[in-house]
Amino acid sequence: MNKYKVTLLPDDILLLVEEGTFLKEAFIGSGVDFEFPCGGMGLCKRCRVKIIKRNGKEEDVLACQLKVEGDLVVEISNREERHITILTEGIERRVVVDPLVRKVCLELPLPSLEDNRDDWARLVRKEGIRPDLKVVQDLPEKLRESNFKVTAVVGDNKIIGVESGDTSDRLLGMAFDIGTTTIAGYLVNLRTGEEITRVSSLNPQTKFGADVISRIIFASDTSLGLDKLHREIINELNNLVEEAVSTTGYEAEDIYTLVVVGNTTMHHLFLKIQPGYLARSPYVPAVTEAMVGDANDINLRINLAGKVFTFPNIAGFVGGDLVADALASEMDKAEKLKLLVDIGTNGEIMLGKEGEYLACSAAAGPAFEGAQISCGMRGASGAIAYVSLGEGECEYTVIGETLPRGIAGSGLVDIIAELLKIGIVNKKGSILEPDNIKSGLGKKYKDRIINVNSILSFVVAENTATGQPVYINQKDIREFQLAKGAIAAGIEILLNTYGAKVEDIDEVFLAGAFGNYLKPESACRVGLIPKELEGKIKGIGNAAGIGAKLAMLSTKEYERAIALARRTHYVELSAHPEFERTFLNKLDF
Amino acid sequence: MNKYKVTLLPDDILLLVEEGTFLKEAFIGSGVDFEFPCGGMGLCKRCRVKIIKRNGKEEDVLACQLKVEGDLVVEISNREERHITILTEGIERRVVVDPLVRKVCLELPLPSLEDNRDDWARLVRKEGIRPDLKVVQDLPEKLRESNFKVTAVVGDNKIIGVESGDTSDRLLGMAFDIGTTTIAGYLVNLRTGEEITRVSSLNPQTKFGADVISRIIFASDTSLGLDKLHREIINELNNLVEEAVSTTGYEAEDIYTLVVVGNTTMHHLFLKIQPGYLARSPYVPAVTEAMVGDANDINLRINLAGKVFTFPNIAGFVGGDLVADALASEMDKAEKLKLLVDIGTNGEIMLGKEGEYLACSAAAGPAFEGAQISCGMRGASGAIAYVSLGEGECEYTVIGETLPRGIAGSGLVDIIAELLKIGIVNKKGSILEPDNIKSGLGKKYKDRIINVNSILSFVVAENTATGQPVYINQKDIREFQLAKGAIAAGIEILLNTYGAKVEDIDEVFLAGAFGNYLKPESACRVGLIPKELEGKIKGIGNAAGIGAKLAMLSTKEYERAIALARRTHYVELSAHPEFERTFLNKLDF
Repeated sequence: MNKYKVTLLPDDILLLVEEGTFLKEAFIGSGVDFEFPCGGMGLCKRCRVKIIKRNGKEEDVLACQLKVEGDLVVEISNREERHITILTEGIERRVVVDPLVRKVCLELPLPSLEDNRDDWARLVRKEGIRPDLKVVQDLPEKLRESNFKVTAVVGDNKIIGVESGDTSDRLLGMAFDIGTTTIAGYLVNLRTGEEITRVSSLNPQTKFGADVISRIIFASDTSLGLDKLHREIINELNNLVEEAVSTTGYEAEDIYTLVVVGNTTMHHLFLKIQPGYLARSPYVPAVTEAMVGDANDINLRINLAGKVFTFPNIAGFVGGDLVADALASEMDKAEKLKLLVDIGTNGEIMLGKEGEYLACSAAAGPAFEGAQISCGMRGASGAIAYVSLGEGECEYTVIGETLPRGIAGSGLVDIIAELLKIGIVNKKGSILEPDNIKSGLGKKYKDRIINVNSILSFVVAENTATGQPVYINQKDIREFQLAKGAIAAGIEILLNTYGAKVEDIDEVFLAGAFGNYLKPESACRVGLIPKELEGKIKGIGNAAGIGAKLAMLSTKEYERAIALARRTHYVELSAHPEFERTFLNKLDF
Repeated sequence: MNKYKVTLLPDDILLLVEEGTFLKEAFIGSGVDFEFPCGGMGLCKRCRVKIIKRNGKEEDVLACQLKVEGDLVVEISNREERHITILTEGIERRVVVDPLVRKVCLELPLPSLEDNRDDWARLVRKEGIRPDLKVVQDLPEKLRESNFKVTAVVGDNKIIGVESGDTSDRLLGMAFDIGTTTIAGYLVNLRTGEEITRVSSLNPQTKFGADVISRIIFASDTSLGLDKLHREIINELNNLVEEAVSTTGYEAEDIYTLVVVGNTTMHHLFLKIQPGYLARSPYVPAVTEAMVGDANDINLRINLAGKVFTFPNIAGFVGGDLVADALASEMDKAEKLKLLVDIGTNGEIMLGKEGEYLACSAAAGPAFEGAQISCGMRGASGAIAYVSLGEGECEYTVIGETLPRGIAGSGLVDIIAELLKIGIVNKKGSILEPDNIKSGLGKKYKDRIINVNSILSFVVAENTATGQPVYINQKDIREFQLAKGAIAAGIEILLNTYGAKVEDIDEVFLAGAFGNYLKPESACRVGLIPKELEGKIKGIGNAAGIGAKLAMLSTKEYERAIALARRTHYVELSAHPEFERTFLNKLDF
């Protein structure tokens, strides 16, 4: 294929462009910072550039419509001002605002006998853009209500709406991270990139089951189960939309885009797709591709033209939330190997660097979320987040500065790490009888080892909100060993499959609230993360929500997420010949 | 751009193919007769071809997925059997069945832990085919109901449905020609190409106005007018669908495609688009592009996955029906200039040969349809279709072999042509007083010249169904002159705009029922068609209906229609500086 030189003035940037490529694609492909306000639909004529010919003559052309058929000198000096937004949470990301749905205001020439193109052609001025019936039905009136000054709404490579007058300052989007337990929503101004507000709530599906498995069973085995779970989540998102706009001067109608991430079960329930087969071997999702649909089709009450975009899933238990984590942390730009771990009910793990990724799901169970642990609880107010067993006394940090009520996931990891350090728990995971403790520091804490309901336990806090001691027992440690063993085995199998060693890993991202609290030292001491990586661990907070926001604000970011998911190879642990052996090896500390 | 040689065995056909082209596109572009049963969506794997390498080794590849990146030898011997259908009406057309909506039956491999792709990926096996939410919602159950043997419904470059088991023998389509007065529907088996039945009815919108202008006014000036007219036509199409399938073993649910042609007003009312601006200068349609939508969205009761395709319009008074006429008569293949005239309320005229076409609308009024003519009527039972004033007596042919009730358009042309020939009507269009008639033959008929309501008239028939004589009067002739003058002027202006002469025209197609009845000799004598073209006139009947059927049966034909409309330049006669003068010149005989 021939390549031509395209020289961009005034910066003298040289692109090598394949013959027949539109200038627009060449700009986008090379990351040239140049805006196509209408997304290259031939609506706005604002992507005008100057072609400088050999004889010095100049010609104005539209970059979205010019094919490169020879060497070119192009002046792109008078560019549109572009909004750049910075998202900071666990990670900092800069992004040029180029949202999935955009608006462009147009003042069209009035029709006359000399120019009696049809309304659609007057609007679009480019062949082959397919008219949508709903848009065309409204078009004659919308154009004439405001004397042919209109705002076109563009998304999903289509014109999805036309509004009378200039409404380009009313363009919001909302990104949702639907967790099994919590829903987080981010209301964003898609013109400026600014986050207006964020809202959150408990996932109301919880009343039909606390974890994904029980919801899958409810959806597949109960009459109208899928229907009910779907309606619950849709209603809750509508409530969150109303709550988010209520404090602003905007209305739900000003929202044109929803971007939704979540695990595969949440994704299916949100789209009213039967998740029943996720829970039965071979754990097959209905769809993993990213999807775009009309918000109105699933009764989401935003603008009638509004679109909903979901992230691609990777497998039945590796969802779009992990893809959003990976997008937020730019796994696809990594030159060295990165490890991403998102621990919830399942540990979702991704390993890779630019171009090739592996992912797996480790059935960790809900130990890290506090379930099945005697005094376990979610990382909410009253949860012990950190514990240190030093020379002085047992010190702990409680979320919300109240008396403790239980132990959060990070506290659990901390306690076990400290108990290992001071020799109260041995490598096999057994709590030693007080008399068997050898280390001096361990002996100091031996009075805290008691029997609770005939099970050997270690008391963490006595002065509690409930009046009952907060403790950890032998059973909890066994439960924890199963969980951390699964994740550690998952990491090892991904490394082996990738043909890499622990030392090759350059950085470890811990996503989710749990990851934010977790002390790297403790995570490594208990063997959740290989010890060699202790200095490389970074908590990235709710990266899934950031990933969703990024994609909503930037079409390129959404496409990155899709590309990343496509290049991710899923490793099914339950079918892996090495899993059982590796898992057993990882149970000890 | 590099081109490579692709040699097709066993027929040793040589194609020159641009680098990077998919083999599928190369086949289609060169008209190679090779079937892609699933439309190249990567569903069926039935477009397998053999690549013969230089070392004689062979490799099986899918033609829909192979890009040409070098010279190739391809064996395409084991092709699918293809249905070829022949449509004969005014014109004969052969077409390879490649319908707008097709079905392909698939037996998919069962999922396993080793192959746990998601359901969608199992179905599609090609990246980037966008999943439709409705299809995905049904997919898990449809696949498992029939142990992964399913039939995919493919249309509009999407998978629009998935059905359990093999349903590929139930695939019907219905083509509709919505006329202002009459609706014709054709029920077609899209697998075999065979026409199953045809139905027709009066357009029920007639009760809100006989012609397009009165309906446009009703739609734009009456409360809910558009709504009512839209509902009338949709209900009638649903009735015709039911009527058509009722005599067959099929059901409305077996219909997956509707192709609809009609004039621009009928098109707008059908799609519930406000036609109000068609009737006001500058006569602007809402849309001229071809459109595809979900039949269900406008309450058409066919299969829920069914699609409706409309033809492109050319302008406010040149509709998709003329494009369908042009497709049926293959204007786009014409090496020499062709003239196409479809006379209804308006004369729609197209002139052109391969690659460039002109079209205009001549406001002929409804004279040819019998309106505003004293004894005028549509070409129905009782209408005089032909008249001859010979040496013997006045001879006429009545449609339906009954006593005459009135005069059809073709009869009107005949009478005036005969009266001109025998000197009863002069070049100015005046009926001569009996005493002023000079020719012997004319004198023979002078008793038929009488005054009816003080207007000079010529009696055509006395023994009539109504007991009243059927006649033509001076006013009728003036009306006719206006009509034929508009059409003749339109033809002349198109010729001038094209830069061609009457003699350059190779063939004249007269579309519509009227065109079928019209005697070329008479059409030329009255100056409707230039005299030089008398031997070149061909009636092509309801070519619009044939065009619609062709497009439904063959995606290529539908694309031809779209290309043809895009390359048709519309000439607005009302704004044309020469129209007035030309029209006045054409009033005389």
